[in-house]
Amino acid sequence: MGGYDELYGLEVLAAGAEEARGVVAVGDGVRQPAGLVHGGIYASIAESLATRATSAALDGRVAVGQSSQTSFLRPITEGAVHAAGRPRHRGRSTWVWEFDITDDAERLCALVRMTVVVR
Amino acid sequence: MGGYDELYGLEVLAAGAEEARGVVAVGDGVRQPAGLVHGGIYASIAESLATRATSAALDGRVAVGQSSQTSFLRPITEGAVHAAGRPRHRGRSTWVWEFDITDDAERLCALVRMTVVVR
Amino acid sequence: MGGYDELYGLEVLAAGAEEARGVVAVGDGVRQPAGLVHGGIYASIAESLATRATSAALDGRVAVGQSSQTSFLRPITEGAVHAAGRPRHRGRSTWVWEFDITDDAERLCALVRMTVVVR
Amino acid sequence: MGGYDELYGLEVLAAGAEEARGVVAVGDGVRQPAGLVHGGIYASIAESLATRATSAALDGRVAVGQSSQTSFLRPITEGAVHAAGRPRHRGRSTWVWEFDITDDAERLCALVRMTVVVR
Repeated sequence: MGGYDELYGLEVLAAGAEEARGVVAVGDGVRQPAGLVHGGIYASIAESLATRATSAALDGRVAVGQSSQTSFLRPITEGAVHAAGRPRHRGRSTWVWEFDITDDAERLCALVRMTVVVR
Repeated sequence: MGGYDELYGLEVLAAGAEEARGVVAVGDGVRQPAGLVHGGIYASIAESLATRATSAALDGRVAVGQSSQTSFLRPITEGAVHAAGRPRHRGRSTWVWEFDITDDAERLCALVRMTVVVR
Repeated sequence: MGGYDELYGLEVLAAGAEEARGVVAVGDGVRQPAGLVHGGIYASIAESLATRATSAALDGRVAVGQSSQTSFLRPITEGAVHAAGRPRHRGRSTWVWEFDITDDAERLCALVRMTVVVR
Repeated sequence: MGGYDELYGLEVLAAGAEEARGVVAVGDGVRQPAGLVHGGIYASIAESLATRATSAALDGRVAVGQSSQTSFLRPITEGAVHAAGRPRHRGRSTWVWEFDITDDAERLCALVRMTVVVR
């Protein structure tokens, strides 16, 4: 695991050609001042999962983020942040992943579209 | 300062109606496994600065992120991450900020567009 | 139908609270110089369908686009452009739609995420 | 000029390595049902200008859109749509352009970020 993923507490549950899933426990370290989970956490989880899953699916080739788009729909304040993504495009040079971010009650809280470049 | 901003080390240099600026020192805690600064850091800095600056400009009204778009242009591996943003739109219900992310050599490394909802 | 939708030939197949679908026949009028369907057509279809469907679902309240994000995955050069979308978020002030754009062979050619403001 | 650009009336004013500019006269053909300029027009102008300018700057190499992000800030209802963009990144494989869309009174009406792939 990389230093940043450890810092905010990402647990990777699946990372392969068909899906990527992970979870982050909510504590003060991932909250913004008003007590909500910071939106940067959603983009961070998606990038970590998408690059790991793409790389794993391609026998370890390097995958790095190219762009990321997040829409915040509902705040998360406690419990855990759950991320589940699937590749919508697996091209020679880019993969595009879409992630649903949900809370413990399985309510949709954010959407992240992540484009990854394969090297 | 909120817990997450402290965790990854955001230093806010300016946060007002005309501009927002901040810096994060690069260490293992903000790097992904290959040694680059994790892209989630850019989105995180932009959201923290945009919401603080919007709130400060509006006498403390609450501002929360609605959407965020990041394009990664050049990796940062050492030194510091510098973020400088300005509001491109200051509406009644939403503000739109654009941030340039640069490295110590003032090279453009990422672009972030951040839409904030004013409550 | 509005003037622009007629101009490029949008046919609306469904526009309601659960889904939105439409189709555009490919001709020179929607192509860019190299013969591919112009990417602006995908964003146009998504905005037209999302605003119509949101408005229809809300008894005619006005819905206007707030932001739009398109990822181009595979070119379309002939046949028709098929768009199918569903609302991922139905809030008091904003709805967020995601559209898949496909060709006649049902291959995924573009993704559009469209945020609509309800007035 | 390609068929679609003619259809909606794009006039290209500049398309080179340093800038891209264009204008579209507002008429019923670019309006949505409520009388506003359709948001798809902004994405269309940006894609046409960015791909033409990138190609012109690279001695005719082919440039095609990869992704596009538009934020709608203020409606345009009459006069003309003015687009002015500059390349924020000129990489080997991708160029990233940012466009300001303004009305006849020079008010900022939309922002478009356009990523172009160079072939």
